[in-house]
Amino acid sequence: MKTLIKDAYVLLPDGTTPRTNILIDGDKIKAIGEVPEDFRPAKIIDGCNHLAVPGFVNAHTHASMTLLRSYADDMNLMDWLNNKVWPVEAKMNEDDIYWGAMLAAVEMIEGGTTAFADMYGPYMDKVAEVVADSGLRGVLCRGIIGVAPDGEKKLDENVALYKDFNGAADGRITVMFGPHAPYTCPPAFLKKVAAAAQSLGAEIHIHMHETQAEIEGSLKEYGKRPFAWVEETGLFDGRGTLAAHCVHLDDHDIEIIKKHHIRVAHNPGSNMKLASGTAPVPRLLKEGVCVALGTDGASSNNNLDMLEEINLAAMLHKVHTLDPLAVPARTAVKMGTEYGAEAIGLKNTGRLEAGCKADITLFDMESAVWYPRHDLVSLLTYAAHADSVDTVLVDGKVLMENRELTTLDKERIFFEAQRCAERLTR
Amino acid sequence: MKTLIKDAYVLLPDGTTPRTNILIDGDKIKAIGEVPEDFRPAKIIDGCNHLAVPGFVNAHTHASMTLLRSYADDMNLMDWLNNKVWPVEAKMNEDDIYWGAMLAAVEMIEGGTTAFADMYGPYMDKVAEVVADSGLRGVLCRGIIGVAPDGEKKLDENVALYKDFNGAADGRITVMFGPHAPYTCPPAFLKKVAAAAQSLGAEIHIHMHETQAEIEGSLKEYGKRPFAWVEETGLFDGRGTLAAHCVHLDDHDIEIIKKHHIRVAHNPGSNMKLASGTAPVPRLLKEGVCVALGTDGASSNNNLDMLEEINLAAMLHKVHTLDPLAVPARTAVKMGTEYGAEAIGLKNTGRLEAGCKADITLFDMESAVWYPRHDLVSLLTYAAHADSVDTVLVDGKVLMENRELTTLDKERIFFEAQRCAERLTR
Repeated sequence: MKTLIKDAYVLLPDGTTPRTNILIDGDKIKAIGEVPEDFRPAKIIDGCNHLAVPGFVNAHTHASMTLLRSYADDMNLMDWLNNKVWPVEAKMNEDDIYWGAMLAAVEMIEGGTTAFADMYGPYMDKVAEVVADSGLRGVLCRGIIGVAPDGEKKLDENVALYKDFNGAADGRITVMFGPHAPYTCPPAFLKKVAAAAQSLGAEIHIHMHETQAEIEGSLKEYGKRPFAWVEETGLFDGRGTLAAHCVHLDDHDIEIIKKHHIRVAHNPGSNMKLASGTAPVPRLLKEGVCVALGTDGASSNNNLDMLEEINLAAMLHKVHTLDPLAVPARTAVKMGTEYGAEAIGLKNTGRLEAGCKADITLFDMESAVWYPRHDLVSLLTYAAHADSVDTVLVDGKVLMENRELTTLDKERIFFEAQRCAERLTR
Repeated sequence: MKTLIKDAYVLLPDGTTPRTNILIDGDKIKAIGEVPEDFRPAKIIDGCNHLAVPGFVNAHTHASMTLLRSYADDMNLMDWLNNKVWPVEAKMNEDDIYWGAMLAAVEMIEGGTTAFADMYGPYMDKVAEVVADSGLRGVLCRGIIGVAPDGEKKLDENVALYKDFNGAADGRITVMFGPHAPYTCPPAFLKKVAAAAQSLGAEIHIHMHETQAEIEGSLKEYGKRPFAWVEETGLFDGRGTLAAHCVHLDDHDIEIIKKHHIRVAHNPGSNMKLASGTAPVPRLLKEGVCVALGTDGASSNNNLDMLEEINLAAMLHKVHTLDPLAVPARTAVKMGTEYGAEAIGLKNTGRLEAGCKADITLFDMESAVWYPRHDLVSLLTYAAHADSVDTVLVDGKVLMENRELTTLDKERIFFEAQRCAERLTR
């Protein structure tokens, strides 16, 4: 099917925002520019007074955890995990995983996110179902706690997830392997995960160096920082690694990241709220590391709003380094789009140019924050909020138009998510 | 006129959010709770599935500067001021001040802000006109640069502003005196400002200790930090002082703040974006200082979204102090409401309780970020955005209902603001 987005301001990979047209054929952008006479679209979207940007890529989240939003805030990390999060997660059934991910899907589409990398479980097949039904693009893994009594079973579930769903939903689902973190997966176990992932050609999604405490624990237990000993397990030798957080890094950690082309998912909102610390993002970018943005779970963020993460990425590093040029607007937007797609292993996604996937978010600029119009990328980064998003396409298919969702029943999802959350926490 | 907000969740001063009714009589809240038979409202607002909070108070902004939003971002401060902001401001005429403030008014009402403290000029009478016409509550001052050739004239304009507008618009306008900052107002000049303000019984609104550089400049010029020598001018001895920013404070500065009951307007968004530093907010709060929140101008923020400032206040200090309990959600909300009203000198405002002014913001909770509902104050602070605001009242009068503005013509304002901005910057 052919679709035409007509007369929008289009954010191109070079950072300019010319007023032009986007021609879509099937799941791809055919061209950006003049409309030839022989291009006959079945659908025309009026882009007048709209800004078209690549769909946002949420490079690290736990979608079903949205059920815990606002359940336990303003707490110390271990108190929060031990007394609130983990007891509730232990009770989660298939239904919870499904409706939690559905609630996340509504929020992601409404916020202009078109692809997300998810780590959670069990029942990741239910999240795959949500990806398939919602029309979103999902990079899924089974979060594997190696120290759990059923660690091996979790690894088997990740293998099954890969076999059942990698490439499913017209290619919108990719499966990675999800060893949770070095502090929950000992070296011998990580070797098993590495072997399983590499035999299937799958990538890795793991939490690395989120808190100072986990680095201290590693030094005590192994005499090394996590990046150093995880490298020795061979986990980074496979097809690719997505490392979430990377807040606390020394020179050697950064060398390892560069050597193995590890892509980083920076989560400024979560790192701020949990007081984890501030990742050395300006330095990583300067050294050529691919740094993407993630929301983390809605239990520690507390939303899945990627435009907020773009804003925080631009703002947090300025005040942290006392350098107002630390992460400029254009860089922050790339982190949330192009670098995001690269980080979660998607090809030809995250840019608006011919040949790329037609994953597109349209902002309606008829509100106060979009005036006056000196610089659209600056307005997007520093002034606007996700509520200006009114149309979202993935693979050329419309998932939302004029803020009406086309694939999901919002009212039903809110009702079911509230029901699940109440049962889990009562 | 009597108005009834029926069946809303109401954020009370104690932080609870019971489902109840708000009875309004004239400009005040008459009661919160059951509706007596003899209360016959002329207007009923359906509060079902809504959260009612005190209208947000923007304790420090430069409303007309909204015309410069997105004009110059990601720049060093002095480069930004010298080469971008000041040359454009020098060209501003009455028309610009009016339409800039009108654009700000649209954004403030749509974001749930009901009162603001503004420092700008010349032509502050045009801002007073905007306050009168929009229905907002405004605490205005003429920003006085004492080192300017026409410093005395600016002071005279502040006197005239006070005489013409203090108490105007049914009491919705208050006038303060606005010496810009210690680095633009030498001691002898500040003494004149103090005398003028004190003879009229007016309060002071001033920038204090925003950057490290201005403290270093003061030490070099006066051998003292600004708070120390400004205290000696008598500026703090009058009716009250609102000090914006207060980023860099030592023990003695904090002593002075406490001694003179100076109220602080903290501007986390602006401080982050301009890389000014992080104010010691948790300590100030602990020491009993009234700390409110402001957006600063939209040229350094880049919006006037108070819910974003509430969120940033809660998030920034957690990561800065590495304490996840540094500024809890309930405190951040109080900073944006109750403490804000106190900071800008308003009585009986900023709280939802009988006898207080009926300045009320209603959030429509029928969207993904408001689910599930474990804790409404947490959802407000960490998950929601201002786009959920759908109804705003000031003095019991509706300024927006179902996101339709009742006092302002949005389309006209966007058009005129864009026109002014283009003329100023071409």
